[in-house]
Amino acid sequence: MLGLMQYHPLMISSAIEFAANYHGDTEIVSRRVEGDIHRTSYAEVNRRAKRIANALDAMQVARSARVGTLAWNGYRHFELYYGVSGSGRVLHTVNPRLHPEQMAWIINHAEDELLCFDITFLPLIKAIAGHCPGVKHWIALCDADKLPADTGVANLLSYEAWIGAASDQYAWPVFDENLASSLCYTSGTTGNPKGVLYSHRSTMLHAMAAGSPDVMGLSSRDCVLPVVPMFHVNAWGLPYLMAMVGCKVVFPGAQLDGKSIYELFESEQVNFSAGVPTVWQMLIGYLEANNLSLSTMKRTVIGGSACPPAMMDTFREKYGVTVFHAWGMTEMSPLGTYGTLKGKHELADWPTQRALLLKQGRPVCGVDMKIVDPEGNALPHDGKVSGDLMVRGSWIVKEYFKGEGGQILDHEGYFSTGDVANIDADGFMQITDRSKDVIKSGGEWISSIDVENIAMAHPAVAMAACIGIRHAKWDERPILVVVKKPNTDVSAREILQFYDGKIAKWQVPDDVQFVDAIPLGATGKMQKAKLREMFVNYALPQ
Amino acid sequence: MLGLMQYHPLMISSAIEFAANYHGDTEIVSRRVEGDIHRTSYAEVNRRAKRIANALDAMQVARSARVGTLAWNGYRHFELYYGVSGSGRVLHTVNPRLHPEQMAWIINHAEDELLCFDITFLPLIKAIAGHCPGVKHWIALCDADKLPADTGVANLLSYEAWIGAASDQYAWPVFDENLASSLCYTSGTTGNPKGVLYSHRSTMLHAMAAGSPDVMGLSSRDCVLPVVPMFHVNAWGLPYLMAMVGCKVVFPGAQLDGKSIYELFESEQVNFSAGVPTVWQMLIGYLEANNLSLSTMKRTVIGGSACPPAMMDTFREKYGVTVFHAWGMTEMSPLGTYGTLKGKHELADWPTQRALLLKQGRPVCGVDMKIVDPEGNALPHDGKVSGDLMVRGSWIVKEYFKGEGGQILDHEGYFSTGDVANIDADGFMQITDRSKDVIKSGGEWISSIDVENIAMAHPAVAMAACIGIRHAKWDERPILVVVKKPNTDVSAREILQFYDGKIAKWQVPDDVQFVDAIPLGATGKMQKAKLREMFVNYALPQ
Repeated sequence: MLGLMQYHPLMISSAIEFAANYHGDTEIVSRRVEGDIHRTSYAEVNRRAKRIANALDAMQVARSARVGTLAWNGYRHFELYYGVSGSGRVLHTVNPRLHPEQMAWIINHAEDELLCFDITFLPLIKAIAGHCPGVKHWIALCDADKLPADTGVANLLSYEAWIGAASDQYAWPVFDENLASSLCYTSGTTGNPKGVLYSHRSTMLHAMAAGSPDVMGLSSRDCVLPVVPMFHVNAWGLPYLMAMVGCKVVFPGAQLDGKSIYELFESEQVNFSAGVPTVWQMLIGYLEANNLSLSTMKRTVIGGSACPPAMMDTFREKYGVTVFHAWGMTEMSPLGTYGTLKGKHELADWPTQRALLLKQGRPVCGVDMKIVDPEGNALPHDGKVSGDLMVRGSWIVKEYFKGEGGQILDHEGYFSTGDVANIDADGFMQITDRSKDVIKSGGEWISSIDVENIAMAHPAVAMAACIGIRHAKWDERPILVVVKKPNTDVSAREILQFYDGKIAKWQVPDDVQFVDAIPLGATGKMQKAKLREMFVNYALPQ
Repeated sequence: MLGLMQYHPLMISSAIEFAANYHGDTEIVSRRVEGDIHRTSYAEVNRRAKRIANALDAMQVARSARVGTLAWNGYRHFELYYGVSGSGRVLHTVNPRLHPEQMAWIINHAEDELLCFDITFLPLIKAIAGHCPGVKHWIALCDADKLPADTGVANLLSYEAWIGAASDQYAWPVFDENLASSLCYTSGTTGNPKGVLYSHRSTMLHAMAAGSPDVMGLSSRDCVLPVVPMFHVNAWGLPYLMAMVGCKVVFPGAQLDGKSIYELFESEQVNFSAGVPTVWQMLIGYLEANNLSLSTMKRTVIGGSACPPAMMDTFREKYGVTVFHAWGMTEMSPLGTYGTLKGKHELADWPTQRALLLKQGRPVCGVDMKIVDPEGNALPHDGKVSGDLMVRGSWIVKEYFKGEGGQILDHEGYFSTGDVANIDADGFMQITDRSKDVIKSGGEWISSIDVENIAMAHPAVAMAACIGIRHAKWDERPILVVVKKPNTDVSAREILQFYDGKIAKWQVPDDVQFVDAIPLGATGKMQKAKLREMFVNYALPQ
């Protein structure tokens, strides 16, 4: 027997319509690539998103056609999130940090028909346009008069001219909530990038869960600055969630240096932010160098990679900011876990709380997690045993775009994250390694992350990567690859001594190798596959 | 093109499974009708809910069959919420404050096959059992040894014996999220009660929205005491939401007097509660009489009827408790609006904030609202113009059970709430009256609620109701019906003078009539239809 409640599909457009209706005057502030500060409102974003929808209709862009973006965080990108997905097309956010060849490959694979880009990316567009024959229109996110006269790019329009010609009267269509809304490619450390095709349902359920008090806990009283890029897993769902709660929004544009972020935090009274550790490192560097404090900032979520413990301490002790870890993947929309404490931990002492906050967090309600041994058997949640981490839920991928990679779920419908983790009885999950980075020595596993974290606490170490080197007797032995901080010196021996008493002797690396730089991927993560290639001819000390 | 994310139906069982997995040791505390305090946990609730599911299977109770409950707020009722709905049956919560005849009518209309009741209701069950031939099993929520030997009720079982015989191993089934999960009848001031049949989808979406920081804002760090009964619109969704966030729960059982509630607040460190004004009146009375304070209580939500302004002030000034208004209906699961302030109001002075907090709140994200004139035309949201309030959304009724009442939505799919309200630009909605209670005098509307609220502020007035009396010239004129506080005296003339300068002269009642009691319905609301009957032969003063 069916229930007798109204059925309304979960639609992305309903978020911006709600914000326009009940938070119409709330500010959306953007630092533009033009350099100035721009102010708009949810009501205006909704009107301009409707212009986009009409402009796409006028171009006869079909439902489910892909519209690419190559843009920083700003109000025009925000408008595209709603105008494109809300009208039934698929928003494909392209990472501008990719290699141009890879970018063209992705645009072609996605079959983008339009590509909207920040005008600063014009040189990049010139380089790839000839390789993307499927793109019918290139749209520069600027006023018509900012468009150079002779760009050499065919079918180039200015965004403002394009949407300016369209009406802002438009009724958002209602359709199957399982239809595709947006597309994001994984960075693809091996093989070609793979597309994750989100639906309206997955996006809205994810945003609702992300907003809850055990996760981001956002309300209409917050002022949010998303540092995490809108080309990176939909800025962790914030563009949808922010509209759903009607909070004030501050978009930082292309300037993610410490000074620029600090100025926006203070001038706009930001109290919540989200980003990867490298950006916060720059911010703390700027604050320390200039002896500044943060007057409104209260909470930040760090994902992408783990927050170094020292950074978490600095944020808390010097700046009064609580850092929460989030963990997820492009394949997970991305939120899987979030690091808020539970009631039982509130009276615990700081070292206990800190140890929990340094884990990757506990499952967002809606995400099922399990850890399994190599045979796929579930392992206990005792906070000790590690296994391959598997996830299942309404905002987790079922298969990749165009079926790339084939069947990717196990017999129970779980997706393998590629992380090795333990989970405690309260659900706090701790990643001990990437499956492919874990070092197997004499039948035991050595966590490359544990080894790196210790090294990172050494005052002379700027960056450290631990990789396994083939060994005749032990299968693999760890070595540490180190980038020194500028104007410091340290020997391999000193770094190895630094491990004394911190981990078991057999887990201490066999060697330390110094390099000028460790290869980083488009999202700032260390590329260990490349690093291993660099050391393919390396021989361990005898 | 469909998205490529996993599809998992929204299932009520997933809430308790999540709580059992990640908040397994969190306490569920109940004051039982047996008199003692009982403690259990989410893990145990899940195990016992699975016993219920197996016990229902053993009885061959079909999917979608109705299982009635007649019970206070307690852990066994909580277990039934999950055991019944989670296994695919429909939980029908019956209001024990109904007249026995009406109760039997509802049980028969719902076609309840089982009825689970608190043992204190045994006399009531004896009275109605003979009139409910469809009920195959009567289940007393008690241990086997608490069951009287000769009850005269056929097919009577003790709950503990019933579920004790069943296994706690059970895999919650996954099925269409639009299937019916629970049934609740409106109190039905006119005509027969009508059933609202909730689905798994509507229930879960409602609970997710209810938990967000702009609504109840509940997290795993809260300790919640739901005073609102679980037989009253599913206790406003709390039984689902509490499990989803894994907060500590305190169920008050049958004892809702000030002393009992106060003791639980303090002993269990409750910080959030929810209920109707009458219960809070009793609590404040007890606190004041005994010169007590509240040490952990921080926020309470008041719904069902508006919180008298004086009560809101007392809670804030004397007890440090913020009162939020919620507004909704059985037909709305029930949440439509919630009274949290927005960012722009946070710096406003207290009188401004207070005026907003006294409104009914702003729409929960997921609820569309409009106000319309008698012809159905939408009216502006200016905070001044009042009209009939209409609502639409995923947790709002489409039609009543068995089609009673026929087509109930307008051409745009909105449900008419029967309230008259205004809405301001921020969405804050203010009910000015019930459609049927508004007094139409000389072409103008007089809000019976405004007239009552002023009278309620008079120190000698315990309760006041304003009703319209037919008038040859003005169509209707208001009179005020007053119950005096014990040991006070006041004249009609004194009360009428109390209106001086507070409302327009033509809105002041023509007369005051004193009565010993105003008729209240099963949910504590004033029954104005009955009151109007009492005054059917009344003549206005000339």
